Amino acid sequence: MQGDLVVYSGGLDSTVLLAKVHAENSKSTVAVHFRYGQRHDDMELSAAMKICRALMVPYQIIEIPLPAWGFRSALLGTQGTIPRGEYDKESLKQTIVPFRNGIMLSIAAGIAANLPGGCTIHIGAHAGDHAIYPDCRPDFLRAMGVAIRRGTDGEVTLSTPFSHLSKSDIVTLGAKIQAPMDMSYSCYNGGEVHCGECATCRERREAFINSGVPDLTEYEK
Amino acid sequence: MQGDLVVYSGGLDSTVLLAKVHAENSKSTVAVHFRYGQRHDDMELSAAMKICRALMVPYQIIEIPLPAWGFRSALLGTQGTIPRGEYDKESLKQTIVPFRNGIMLSIAAGIAANLPGGCTIHIGAHAGDHAIYPDCRPDFLRAMGVAIRRGTDGEVTLSTPFSHLSKSDIVTLGAKIQAPMDMSYSCYNGGEVHCGECATCRERREAFINSGVPDLTEYEK
Repeated sequence: MQGDLVVYSGGLDSTVLLAKVHAENSKSTVAVHFRYGQRHDDMELSAAMKICRALMVPYQIIEIPLPAWGFRSALLGTQGTIPRGEYDKESLKQTIVPFRNGIMLSIAAGIAANLPGGCTIHIGAHAGDHAIYPDCRPDFLRAMGVAIRRGTDGEVTLSTPFSHLSKSDIVTLGAKIQAPMDMSYSCYNGGEVHCGECATCRERREAFINSGVPDLTEYEK
Repeated sequence: MQGDLVVYSGGLDSTVLLAKVHAENSKSTVAVHFRYGQRHDDMELSAAMKICRALMVPYQIIEIPLPAWGFRSALLGTQGTIPRGEYDKESLKQTIVPFRNGIMLSIAAGIAANLPGGCTIHIGAHAGDHAIYPDCRPDFLRAMGVAIRRGTDGEVTLSTPFSHLSKSDIVTLGAKIQAPMDMSYSCYNGGEVHCGECATCRERREAFINSGVPDLTEYEK
């Protein structure tokens, strides 16, 4: 059977993606969650597991111990702190983990190639991330999709259904398909409750406001 | 300064590559060695470290614990044994670790993007591997090179100087530039001495015979 493997962080975007892929391919969907040393790894994983259980999607957890000497990022705690109260390009840049999507997609491709019957990998990269993260842009994702297809003898393909959507578009879609967005977690500070101040909390808030969908997230501030 | 990062296993092909890149860019060359659960990980690492010290090339070691549930391969000990005394397509196929080059190149790209001043990643994939390993073929490597460039905002490029060479061509080049090929290790069985019987030992032997370069490797049989 053709498989559907969703790169699933437990955040807002990938939760809508998981709900969508699962609604369309309920028998073949598997979530793959990556832990790579982010400050908020544990909260992400906890949200991801709860949501997978709620949707009845099987999931697998993959540890990638990215070496601190090679990866400097506020997100990994290997350089500086998570910027608070700022939401500009420079603040966001401090949280870049270079080529993260390439790394996750490559490991997912290896796993997918082991599945019998071929597999589609789904990733929730979206247009709102394009300006800052080169590995979220359509031109990167297209090349990576070609590399994955060629490097697996055509067994594995890449699907990027959100690559031209804004985060508000994703929230609108999530509301329509009743994705459990309220259970998702995306705060870079990794507290029990979303801080409401870091760049990703601000993006989350704005996406709900712009889409007119009620935001059930609890924020610290 | 522009960096040169060599994906370095400690095997025959990548030893010639490392010697070549280091001869051309002695100040900027760094070797990156990946450990991902192969039966012969320890012997490979030991050879890689000795050769890096001999060439005076700095090296870094990266552990990627590929999950056994996701990667089934005789090479990882997660499925079957290493075929002995056979050297055909089916035997070799049992030793495939799907998308291995994609995974190593992606992690290397993340590290390379963290280096100031841009970086070239070098990998020793060659024509002899094309038939069996899709992630060694030029069409894969080209797409991966595009993905790496785009996914790092043009900071990182991929160099594949052996992609159209045979293993004999590589041995000929190695002899010419005095690469320490005798110190390299490539046996899939991971013993103290090359077994002489597994697919990769047979390839190694043949490459020396075909190139007319004396083979200083000690083989068990």
